Amino acid sequence: MTTAELPTTKGQQTRQRILAAAAPLFNQKGFAGASMQEILDATGLEKGGLYRHFPTKQHLAEEALRYTMARSVRTRTEPLDPTQTAPDQLRTLIARFVTAPSTIPGGCPLMNTAIDADDTNPNLRALARHAVEDWKTRLIQIIDRGIAAGHIRPETQPRQIANTIIATLEGALMLSRLEAATTPLEDARDTLDHVLRAITPKSQRHPQRRRTSHQ
Amino acid sequence: MTTAELPTTKGQQTRQRILAAAAPLFNQKGFAGASMQEILDATGLEKGGLYRHFPTKQHLAEEALRYTMARSVRTRTEPLDPTQTAPDQLRTLIARFVTAPSTIPGGCPLMNTAIDADDTNPNLRALARHAVEDWKTRLIQIIDRGIAAGHIRPETQPRQIANTIIATLEGALMLSRLEAATTPLEDARDTLDHVLRAITPKSQRHPQRRRTSHQ
Repeated sequence: MTTAELPTTKGQQTRQRILAAAAPLFNQKGFAGASMQEILDATGLEKGGLYRHFPTKQHLAEEALRYTMARSVRTRTEPLDPTQTAPDQLRTLIARFVTAPSTIPGGCPLMNTAIDADDTNPNLRALARHAVEDWKTRLIQIIDRGIAAGHIRPETQPRQIANTIIATLEGALMLSRLEAATTPLEDARDTLDHVLRAITPKSQRHPQRRRTSHQ
Repeated sequence: MTTAELPTTKGQQTRQRILAAAAPLFNQKGFAGASMQEILDATGLEKGGLYRHFPTKQHLAEEALRYTMARSVRTRTEPLDPTQTAPDQLRTLIARFVTAPSTIPGGCPLMNTAIDADDTNPNLRALARHAVEDWKTRLIQIIDRGIAAGHIRPETQPRQIANTIIATLEGALMLSRLEAATTPLEDARDTLDHVLRAITPKSQRHPQRRRTSHQ
């Protein structure tokens, strides 16, 4: 939250408190699974206090998702070390995802919403789609800068690499949560490390980064 | 369905009819989102007819998921052409997933259940986990055979490659559904093609298979 977003009035503080309580419940239980009563219990507010800020469950879910997604995408793409090359910046972001894949209980809010809302809730789905586009755009910008600086091979397709990073990390997070093991995320990191080596010009490669077994 | 599983009695036929109607509803709406009334409407049965076979929603969801998952894993790993090398068998399975990622409306039932049930329904989660293990084991067997035959480099870690294939395809399916576009799945296929080239001994590579741009 930037200074400009700090809640200043009591009403804004209550609103933030409701969002902070509702966001993990929606993320863990989904739209249909989380009830307004549970959210009310988690906030400690009276019913009137909740409905004054969010007249419907749909309204609350949308605002909670905006609140969560902005944080998720930021954490996954910032801060970047400007002294690193683009492939190393991507490695840093991938390593951060593998170590701390979610900023909120219940797994990745983008994936949860994409799965939960795909057939049932077009507004929530649109929010998830927007967050994924934002994430992808930021990765593509890093890759574009890397190509311009000669740190990434010029024939690389930025969109393909960005899609692969997001897909592999999200899928691996799903597997890791399902298996209650970090292996799938670590395996994804190692394979992505190899993919990043392959798009790095030979003259730019760090020999010590050969972590994967299949090169 | 094998011949041994064919429903022979009227009761078994009704049971299959309920599962076939319930499976897509659970897959599209999730456990909490799909109601017994909707399922009842989809089957055209009386309430007593449904509850005679499945006394609870939980019971019905578990059986519907078993029914769906067995089909999904089979479709994703069979049949294999024994005249192909292991990397080409994996390419065939990947291409099949990219063309027809789900056997049922609502996206991948493994991912849907993994996301829907992760914090709320341990029995459904266990079924999804079992299906993923089954899929992974079948991929590892293909890779092991490839190593034994000299078609895959001996230092390859089969589990890492299997985890990467599953994670990348599942994550790409999520992105493709979210964006209503096939690009993420096609990008995943192209990157996986590159990963498979990297684990193939140089003497075994097909030069015409160089489809990706970053090699």
